[in-house]
Amino acid sequence: MTVFGLVAGALTMLSFLPQVLRTARTRSAGDLSWGWLLLFGGGVGMWAVYGIATGDVPVAVTNVITLGLVSVLVVLKVRTREVEV
Amino acid sequence: MTVFGLVAGALTMLSFLPQVLRTARTRSAGDLSWGWLLLFGGGVGMWAVYGIATGDVPVAVTNVITLGLVSVLVVLKVRTREVEV
Repeated sequence: MTVFGLVAGALTMLSFLPQVLRTARTRSAGDLSWGWLLLFGGGVGMWAVYGIATGDVPVAVTNVITLGLVSVLVVLKVRTREVEV
Repeated sequence: MTVFGLVAGALTMLSFLPQVLRTARTRSAGDLSWGWLLLFGGGVGMWAVYGIATGDVPVAVTNVITLGLVSVLVVLKVRTREVEV
């Protein structure tokens, strides 16, 4: 089941790459909700802790990386907001 | 740890509510990447199966609901695209 979990984690983790690339390319993040970014980032951070604490490798690894990608989206959202002002 | 996992799951799950509400209100989903939506939806679907198969209640429950919310975003993205055409 760990392999299955790693594939699931890889998909959810890698899914943020096209979103980061799109936002970086278009310099447009208006449609991304702050509520989503912050709540999701907080949840993913907790999932990372949950995975580490329970020794669940797929949950731990994927959520640490996802947290990194979501943080990039937050930075892009802040930066593109400045451009719009 | 299950409570911790449930809180983590609740955050990542509930985080999609503000995104769905924003997209529904603004009728604008251009900044949401198709790559993200489809890969993420696929990954969350697998996480739901992973949670059910391993009896991990937080992972199973939260990912089934998240899958529902992401599906709403996909429908909204399709619908708003028609409006733009």
